Amino acid sequence: MKAPLGFRYASTYAGIRKVAKDDVALIVSDTPASAAAVFTKNRVVAGPVVVARANLRASGGKMRAVLANAGNANCATATAEAVAKESVRAAADVLKVKPREVLPASTGVIGVELDSALILRALPALCSGLDAARFDDAAAAILTTDTRPKTAFAEVQGARIAGMAKGSGMIHPRMATTLGFVMTDAVVPPAALRAALRRAIERSFNRISVDGDTSTNDTVAVFANGASKVRPAPKRFGEALAQVLESLAVQIVKDGEGARKLVTIEVAGAASDAAAEKIARAIANSPLVKTAIAGSDPNWGRILSAAGNAGVAFDPRQTDVEMQGLPVCRGGLAAEFSEDDLKKKLDEAECSIQFRIRGRGRGHTRFWTCDLTEEYIRINASYRT
Amino acid sequence: MKAPLGFRYASTYAGIRKVAKDDVALIVSDTPASAAAVFTKNRVVAGPVVVARANLRASGGKMRAVLANAGNANCATATAEAVAKESVRAAADVLKVKPREVLPASTGVIGVELDSALILRALPALCSGLDAARFDDAAAAILTTDTRPKTAFAEVQGARIAGMAKGSGMIHPRMATTLGFVMTDAVVPPAALRAALRRAIERSFNRISVDGDTSTNDTVAVFANGASKVRPAPKRFGEALAQVLESLAVQIVKDGEGARKLVTIEVAGAASDAAAEKIARAIANSPLVKTAIAGSDPNWGRILSAAGNAGVAFDPRQTDVEMQGLPVCRGGLAAEFSEDDLKKKLDEAECSIQFRIRGRGRGHTRFWTCDLTEEYIRINASYRT
Repeated sequence: MKAPLGFRYASTYAGIRKVAKDDVALIVSDTPASAAAVFTKNRVVAGPVVVARANLRASGGKMRAVLANAGNANCATATAEAVAKESVRAAADVLKVKPREVLPASTGVIGVELDSALILRALPALCSGLDAARFDDAAAAILTTDTRPKTAFAEVQGARIAGMAKGSGMIHPRMATTLGFVMTDAVVPPAALRAALRRAIERSFNRISVDGDTSTNDTVAVFANGASKVRPAPKRFGEALAQVLESLAVQIVKDGEGARKLVTIEVAGAASDAAAEKIARAIANSPLVKTAIAGSDPNWGRILSAAGNAGVAFDPRQTDVEMQGLPVCRGGLAAEFSEDDLKKKLDEAECSIQFRIRGRGRGHTRFWTCDLTEEYIRINASYRT
Repeated sequence: MKAPLGFRYASTYAGIRKVAKDDVALIVSDTPASAAAVFTKNRVVAGPVVVARANLRASGGKMRAVLANAGNANCATATAEAVAKESVRAAADVLKVKPREVLPASTGVIGVELDSALILRALPALCSGLDAARFDDAAAAILTTDTRPKTAFAEVQGARIAGMAKGSGMIHPRMATTLGFVMTDAVVPPAALRAALRRAIERSFNRISVDGDTSTNDTVAVFANGASKVRPAPKRFGEALAQVLESLAVQIVKDGEGARKLVTIEVAGAASDAAAEKIARAIANSPLVKTAIAGSDPNWGRILSAAGNAGVAFDPRQTDVEMQGLPVCRGGLAAEFSEDDLKKKLDEAECSIQFRIRGRGRGHTRFWTCDLTEEYIRINASYRT
């Protein structure tokens, strides 16, 4: 891929995580970039989220840098906001930009003091390491329990978009999940960027779920610095941005804690898109559905039952369900299918569930989740210790 | 315990489950009993639930028998309602009561035809086996993945209450969970019984959660046949009924699929009891909290974060959290505690989480859940096969 022009990246090990693996990332735009971001909807909000929101507002949506760390969420501590502000101020000093032009983000354990001195000490090395070619290093430095980095790229009318994300647990719909940073050299004014991000988030990060939990730190930010001088058609740009975010979101689900299978859920025929989303989310969050998929068990009764709990009115006798493209339920009843064949198909790394309500409803959605395996338990029963 | 007068019980193996273990239970009151029941709120409703609801209404709340089977939910099949009706009619014939006086209930796999002939053939043996002393046999016959039967008893002013329940997965708050049958020889009119059941359910079966899923078959029914001639004070009776249901509910959680620990969650200081319940449920349903408990990890940040996702307004800086009675979070920040000591305490079979919001809110609730272990996955990834 061709990298978006006018961005540089760096990462280093500041000593925040226990293992000596880069834990601070810096992303800098050479010129002020239009910036837009979405944040967690949790009532408990990390220090960097408070500061990022305030800076985004104060800067009028024109920013220069992202400063992110892994290994500590900088949340639910007495100093959380102060540490985020201090780190931002120090980064701004070294970068010779205004503090309000720096967007901070953190991920890691909650409730443990983050020592700002670690970040302050790392900043000189971090800044001197900035390089247009170090995108992948930055993408690796923000990971926590992820088993692989997540990156995605697109071109739109000659402008370039590059995105990185982290996240493998605490993935929840209805919000900007974990951390995602998208850089583009397209010319996009802040208001248009905000609108494009909001639309793209709806069909990407807000349509995935690993375990139904929602982090205190979730942030997805987009920077558009205009370095390509290309001013793409808003619709084309929005589509390209959505593709990048969708790719990142699906990569997050695929790398869900303990996940062995990506599950794509399509719901159609609901009264509205919102109703379809509720049904899809109920299926995606059902531990019984997710364990059945883990066991390659075509247990469509669990899918129907989960949908029945979505809080959405529909007639079960008018529903058809397919798994891997094979009908398993017709009009709310068991369809004829070969259990052995379907079990074999469900052993594949990608599974699909189609849930259709007959009639005139036009509400539909696509949603991604993963199977729930014993490995999820192993990871989360001992994450902190 | 002394059994409630005027009830007889029976069980037999009808061939519904694969293993040769009793799978049909019959409970009969010698005289018409006041009857009340609560049912699943799932949109997908099993045949027996439809028939039970209709019979309860048609009988004016005066019923004679419960006919329950395990091994097949009799749900989402073309014949579900017909099979439930046919079984009820046949049982009524043999018992010489009216079909509308029989309350059917089923539990087991969804979407597989239940062969009514199996039940019809079992009925004569079942009826001839009826005996006041066979309470425990009936309680065993309704179990599925349960590892032990659940029974509870109480006396109130000389009248007796005896309850049995089954359920170990698909346990969800806000509904009558899985199957529960309570018999009492107290004199209680149908309307008073309904009111008492509704209140008791609110603080028992509606305050537990194993995996957040909700079955299509959930039914809790109470029969009061007045055989003791004791007419207890409504408040005393309600309290005794609630104790029986609470005991059954907690037994269900303790026997949650793969559960090794019972977790009692107390929330206080919320704006209302309903708000407290939302917070408690969010904590109880969080896979991250449940896996942390499994790993004896005092990860209070996950508790705070789960509460923050409850959709209830509260100030995290005004919250205190205790685990096993030890402060782990004070005013939204880490409290001083010995991690090693607390880890040891969290190894116990019963864990407690106290979540308190400072200030004048008087909303409070108690809620029960269990830890989430690898065993839950093992059970559910292969339940059907």
